[in-house]
Amino acid sequence: MRNIRLVLEYDGTGYHGFQAQDNTALPTIQGELEGAIETICREKLRITGSGRTDAGVHALGQVVNFHTRSTVPTERFPAALNSVLPRDIRVKEAEAVPLDFHARFDAVSKTYVYLVDNRPLTSVFLRNYAYHVSLPLDVGAMRRAAELLVGTQDYASFRSSGSSVKTSVRTIYEFDIQESEACNGIIKFKVRADGFLYNMMRNMVGTLLEVGLGKFSVEDVAAILAARDRRLAGPTAPPCGLYLVEVEYPSSR
Amino acid sequence: MRNIRLVLEYDGTGYHGFQAQDNTALPTIQGELEGAIETICREKLRITGSGRTDAGVHALGQVVNFHTRSTVPTERFPAALNSVLPRDIRVKEAEAVPLDFHARFDAVSKTYVYLVDNRPLTSVFLRNYAYHVSLPLDVGAMRRAAELLVGTQDYASFRSSGSSVKTSVRTIYEFDIQESEACNGIIKFKVRADGFLYNMMRNMVGTLLEVGLGKFSVEDVAAILAARDRRLAGPTAPPCGLYLVEVEYPSSR
Repeated sequence: MRNIRLVLEYDGTGYHGFQAQDNTALPTIQGELEGAIETICREKLRITGSGRTDAGVHALGQVVNFHTRSTVPTERFPAALNSVLPRDIRVKEAEAVPLDFHARFDAVSKTYVYLVDNRPLTSVFLRNYAYHVSLPLDVGAMRRAAELLVGTQDYASFRSSGSSVKTSVRTIYEFDIQESEACNGIIKFKVRADGFLYNMMRNMVGTLLEVGLGKFSVEDVAAILAARDRRLAGPTAPPCGLYLVEVEYPSSR
Repeated sequence: MRNIRLVLEYDGTGYHGFQAQDNTALPTIQGELEGAIETICREKLRITGSGRTDAGVHALGQVVNFHTRSTVPTERFPAALNSVLPRDIRVKEAEAVPLDFHARFDAVSKTYVYLVDNRPLTSVFLRNYAYHVSLPLDVGAMRRAAELLVGTQDYASFRSSGSSVKTSVRTIYEFDIQESEACNGIIKFKVRADGFLYNMMRNMVGTLLEVGLGKFSVEDVAAILAARDRRLAGPTAPPCGLYLVEVEYPSSR
């Protein structure tokens, strides 16, 4: 028996999110990957993801693991699985890990990126890959507000309902907002945290965009955070701009 | 009566090319645009494109024109048409031009770009937008071969069958091959010519890629060009990497 860890990249546009659904007519990342593993390993098994991503959300570095009795050499998994997976899901890496490794429980932090296209006119090529905000954004104000969100705090104001997690305290290690040098007008929000509440990234970005548009002040964001009330924060930014970039594990794992 | 010129951007992935088909079940750029114009102008009319693009080929600056009796102000056309067009086709500009302006006959040159992803592993996000060549390419050799293609020459070796055009002599003003600074490993082929034969851009790129891979020498390309025989040239590069970037008209038009 081996425990295999995979790193995945996927375009979430055509999927109803990561997690397999009871309605198998809806394609999911998990469903496609389990089907590919069944083809390659001739075993019906369940994979464990580091966490869900919603419909339309992308990944550059989602991590999953699964236990298998197959004799497929570990280094062969990427090419073998990619030969049967749809073209919008790719296995980038495969590694044998300790049998008790768990993609979700062992994760110590995750990094998400959110892309906003802040040009007056967007490009058809970005319609599924960035959120288009045509009015000019005050990046400096968004940065000052983002600084308030760094640290160990209760992020209840940025949690959408539909989650059963007990505590809404998380630690944000880094909240970086950069204007792309390669592509003028693209703004990249990058957040590394020990965990994310349901829709937390999209709710934080949606709130900071209100700051960028001048609808909220930087002080408003401090008040929103302190209130622990989702109704006070900004709207949930759409899924197309969101990318799960990396899941970090202890070096021993 | 006005003659309206539009500049279009589109993602060709979901379309059976630019030109309207007899089989109206197959979506085309022309079909979608004529439908949108009918909705906005309440006139059933035909548009004239600067030229066709094949299925899967993209455009950043396709040009079309059409004659209309509608009273929609010219400057309102982009927003009005975009409100009814699918999200993968956008009207970027609209302008009233002389009644005898013809998008195809008046074009004096066109610029195409072809993108090759030359990284060992491609990204799912480029699967429809660049051609993935995983083996290393000799960009210097491709540049030397491309220089041979510049000038006024008979490009019969790079014309796919299926075209009824009489002469295969064209003038290539510029053939530029650049490695992207923003994205390491992306190679951009940019060609400006007074016209392109059927599949000429994709056949030239397919031939230069053989040079980059060491299958053809630079001298082979000179011999292929001189032979005026399509069978000697390299394969047709796939449509996903091709973009019609700009159509140029005399400044008086």
